[in-house]
Amino acid sequence: MANVTIKILAEQLNLSTAAVSKALRDSHEISPLTKQRVLDLAASLNYVPHPYAGSLRERKSKTIAVVLPEVADSFFSLALNGIEEVAIEKGYHALIYLTHESFEREQAILKDLESGRVDGVIMSVSMKTNTFEHIKRLQQRIPMVFFDRVCEEIDTAKITTNDYECGYTATQHLIDRGCKKIALLSVSDSLSISSQRMKGYQQALLDNGRADDAPRIVACSDDEATNYALMMELLRSEDRPDGIVATVSKMTTEIYLACMELKINIPEDIKVVCFSNDASAPILNPALTTITQPAFEMGKLAATLMFKALQKKYFLLSDQSAVIPSELRIRSSTGH
Amino acid sequence: MANVTIKILAEQLNLSTAAVSKALRDSHEISPLTKQRVLDLAASLNYVPHPYAGSLRERKSKTIAVVLPEVADSFFSLALNGIEEVAIEKGYHALIYLTHESFEREQAILKDLESGRVDGVIMSVSMKTNTFEHIKRLQQRIPMVFFDRVCEEIDTAKITTNDYECGYTATQHLIDRGCKKIALLSVSDSLSISSQRMKGYQQALLDNGRADDAPRIVACSDDEATNYALMMELLRSEDRPDGIVATVSKMTTEIYLACMELKINIPEDIKVVCFSNDASAPILNPALTTITQPAFEMGKLAATLMFKALQKKYFLLSDQSAVIPSELRIRSSTGH
Repeated sequence: MANVTIKILAEQLNLSTAAVSKALRDSHEISPLTKQRVLDLAASLNYVPHPYAGSLRERKSKTIAVVLPEVADSFFSLALNGIEEVAIEKGYHALIYLTHESFEREQAILKDLESGRVDGVIMSVSMKTNTFEHIKRLQQRIPMVFFDRVCEEIDTAKITTNDYECGYTATQHLIDRGCKKIALLSVSDSLSISSQRMKGYQQALLDNGRADDAPRIVACSDDEATNYALMMELLRSEDRPDGIVATVSKMTTEIYLACMELKINIPEDIKVVCFSNDASAPILNPALTTITQPAFEMGKLAATLMFKALQKKYFLLSDQSAVIPSELRIRSSTGH
Repeated sequence: MANVTIKILAEQLNLSTAAVSKALRDSHEISPLTKQRVLDLAASLNYVPHPYAGSLRERKSKTIAVVLPEVADSFFSLALNGIEEVAIEKGYHALIYLTHESFEREQAILKDLESGRVDGVIMSVSMKTNTFEHIKRLQQRIPMVFFDRVCEEIDTAKITTNDYECGYTATQHLIDRGCKKIALLSVSDSLSISSQRMKGYQQALLDNGRADDAPRIVACSDDEATNYALMMELLRSEDRPDGIVATVSKMTTEIYLACMELKINIPEDIKVVCFSNDASAPILNPALTTITQPAFEMGKLAATLMFKALQKKYFLLSDQSAVIPSELRIRSSTGH
């Protein structure tokens, strides 16, 4: 009877899945009559909540895994602090696994986690992840929550920020400051966050009548030397941009170093805005305008949902996705 | 017979412990005759190598733990990359545990690891760690290697950098650039690295006839707001320093922000050198003079030794400590 799902209950009762889920959790939003109908049908069909839910209270590992691309990035290290704050409060250990942006490594780690080492997994996928079987297999065993770099294909809680709006806002800010030729620095377009930020950028150009500009999207790597060479090439080109939106925090150093090398002044010759949570942004030369993400809050919410899933019998992670907005922080790198 | 140690073998044979250890490892540095004497005595006394060594080849976890204070620090995130490079090559998973500078948390993590979850532990202690029973207990079960923040009390491999010399070099550099009143920013003096850096600073002052200067050692916390308040207080004081050696990378932002707020110019009014591996050092305003530690190399060596201990029958970690020197990188924050 493992095939009886909330969806089936909902169809038979002519209710939404959300309503069934709420009824099972005894939510005050659902009338007593409806609750009774749901519980009666659930009992008669021998409905079993998500496979892991029943046995959770007997689990003993008291450990969750956090699977991340890297920690040499202030977004992830701040998010990790948010996750750990909740884990510590709950008396759990958080085991951190790094994929180093390798799809093979991510597969090996998730395979290892299938052994039951941990009670749940909080994850941000690698930039090379483009199939999801390894994730689906693990999610059938233990609860998973995604943050930032999520998988649309997996039905669970996803904590994101407003990447599309931020791509738009950053681009519009440069247009407002007089930029005519705005380049976007991006990474893997298989990542949802990258494609959202890129769409925001493109829409802002379109809305400002810049749609037929030459394409100025630069695909960066995760290697510093390669990225520096890319920046030198971009900034030496005849049709040099006068504005840069970097969707990757670690490009900051390469942009600044290349500008110093080529004696291009920020913000006079080129204006720069980076998606970044680096504490150094206000003390750079010049201070950096950033899209600052709610990294700590995203990690904290992801962990809070995870522990609800681990502790409550009826708690549907897939109802819990949330978007926490980022902020544009204007500093000298985009002018005064 | 668990009490028969290398030391006992060495005493009975009138050899050094290093020579006995090398003989057991079949080192070419030891003559065949001596090797035979060592092996004969070892056999007759039923010498058992360190308790974990014998059964290692049957171990299956294929996992090591890395216990760190935090990762929101470029030293630790780079060291971690060095550790992981080796672990991945050896087909191991590295589980990262963060103590967040809490002694209680560190104890809980090490207690958890006693259960046999991992084959070995690479560790840098918290700044609050001042007793070592929890470490000794774990080290009796599995091999441990320390890096950067080591425990002198534990007999195993310790990978450090030349902290004393760096404290000296940084201070001498400021004296050479004309500073008369040099402050040292430090953390917990229970950490070996902090006390070494501080001793280097004091010796440099002494060697330059500055020994009777007012004490200018500022104990920083791990809280940003507290540290910012400390900097504001230091820089507002009548007897303001004209040079700062920060032994803690994360103080950089607070020093720069406090100087900006008080309109104190770096390097004209105050010169600054920080122990830091931050990629942003060259793009700060002004570019920051640093003591740059061999973070990646330290992590890589710690992991290399760990895997030798896991894979070889006779390999004494306590013979393997190493010091990898750091570098002074002079930039604008200490003048031109």
